[in-house]
Amino acid sequence: MVEILIAPHAGFCFGVKRAIHMAEKASQLAKEGKRVFTMGPLIHNPQEVERLRKEGVELLKQEEDLKEGDTVIIRSHGIPPYKERKLRAIGLNIVDATCPYVKAVHEAVVQLSKEGYFVVLVGERNHPEVIGTLGYLQEVGGEGTVVEKREDLLSVLGKDKVGIVAQTTQDEQFFKEVVGEIALWAKEVKIINTICNATSERQEDVYKLAPEVDVMIIIGGKNSGNTRRLYQISKSLNPNTYHIETADEINREWFVGVKKVGITAGASTPDWIIKDVVDKIKLIINYHANTHS
Amino acid sequence: MVEILIAPHAGFCFGVKRAIHMAEKASQLAKEGKRVFTMGPLIHNPQEVERLRKEGVELLKQEEDLKEGDTVIIRSHGIPPYKERKLRAIGLNIVDATCPYVKAVHEAVVQLSKEGYFVVLVGERNHPEVIGTLGYLQEVGGEGTVVEKREDLLSVLGKDKVGIVAQTTQDEQFFKEVVGEIALWAKEVKIINTICNATSERQEDVYKLAPEVDVMIIIGGKNSGNTRRLYQISKSLNPNTYHIETADEINREWFVGVKKVGITAGASTPDWIIKDVVDKIKLIINYHANTHS
Repeated sequence: MVEILIAPHAGFCFGVKRAIHMAEKASQLAKEGKRVFTMGPLIHNPQEVERLRKEGVELLKQEEDLKEGDTVIIRSHGIPPYKERKLRAIGLNIVDATCPYVKAVHEAVVQLSKEGYFVVLVGERNHPEVIGTLGYLQEVGGEGTVVEKREDLLSVLGKDKVGIVAQTTQDEQFFKEVVGEIALWAKEVKIINTICNATSERQEDVYKLAPEVDVMIIIGGKNSGNTRRLYQISKSLNPNTYHIETADEINREWFVGVKKVGITAGASTPDWIIKDVVDKIKLIINYHANTHS
Repeated sequence: MVEILIAPHAGFCFGVKRAIHMAEKASQLAKEGKRVFTMGPLIHNPQEVERLRKEGVELLKQEEDLKEGDTVIIRSHGIPPYKERKLRAIGLNIVDATCPYVKAVHEAVVQLSKEGYFVVLVGERNHPEVIGTLGYLQEVGGEGTVVEKREDLLSVLGKDKVGIVAQTTQDEQFFKEVVGEIALWAKEVKIINTICNATSERQEDVYKLAPEVDVMIIIGGKNSGNTRRLYQISKSLNPNTYHIETADEINREWFVGVKKVGITAGASTPDWIIKDVVDKIKLIINYHANTHS
């Protein structure tokens, strides 16, 4: 009997699941003849974006194309408030799929700024989530900066009261360094930890699962930083680790003589891709079992 | 011409200088026939404590010896408020030489506690400063704990709102680690950095001075952690580094052919001991100069 163990947190995180759900609901409007758009790809998974497109949820090419009565889905990353106002002014139907954990970052920077803190947002300067959050800080006339790498700390030097938040998908190690560094020179530091635990949960799953199985399969975009990190962790614990994007990449040979298979997937991998992979592995296992008997 | 360079921050820190000055003022009362005590040795330097004793400032042996009208000097470390109340109840004349930087820690824990934070005091559990500060936290019914080593972090696990302060002489590296660690699990962290820069200033002096001189002399108690650290830093930069407690330990041979001498001293070394050392070195240098000519 071959066991297939799927990591408890494999695949979509809460915010992505919620956004897809809202997009599916909005696709009803498309079926009623309305135009439904997402601003930017809803998730970093072309197969899933294509699936939604078939349901009538289009990717917006340029804002100028929008007309009164159109529906626009704000994706989980969120957008700056001035941009939202601009969309509302057109008379659009707005479906706000901003992740509640991202909303918490918006609220945190506003709160810290009102309390008189210079705000440090630890994250990637050009990430849509960070751009959105900075918009909320600007909105209340707050002072602050993005810290993406150690050198960026220079712009925090000399600030007495520093408030620190993070992009929800921020790497914990770097966040910790930044916090420790600033705490040494600033007189007062207030930290609202806005890192979402989706990323660390997926990594912890791998730490537990990879050493227990004969083969470990990591599903997710080859260009996804988070998925690659899952692969590296797994490979270091179990040399029989394979990183695939879809079931097509599975190799029959990987499962010869195998008793336990572990599976996990990055946060932007839809359940149906995971299911495809599991089904294909089951077929292979049965094949091996039959050729053995 | 031989140069003698004394580090800018050699010797007493601000709080110790202030406490000695207050003790000297109080010694006037002793000359008028009043009894003047310090609670614990005023500084960790037996020679200086002895000098003050000769001026009439005695070391208190047991609290039971105190009578109305006696003068008691609270040393720079401070004491818990319930202890101060007890002393005042006796009708003593209290000279409060608590370092203002230590007072700032007392105020910080009270403020954090009032704001609803679980208070983490990074420092040595049995240090008088820490005991005093905890007294102030207790006074307002605040919750908190001392973190002296990594294992102590266990008692902070599960706390949502954590306020962090430090013993004034806390090592910066460990403080940084503690802050970074807690910031990863707590939802909200507020840090009031109460580390006094006296220690780091003395170390920075050595980093600058030691590589520039032919011989480096570090003055201070052999059992003083801070002075030993100064010695280690200096020795790593300049092998001709010597750690002495008084001028008596100076060896004539250290100065043969020397052009530049660097001198620094730990925070509990009085100026007169530094002066003794400088005078003796000057004598030796002149001796060498004369035997050469």
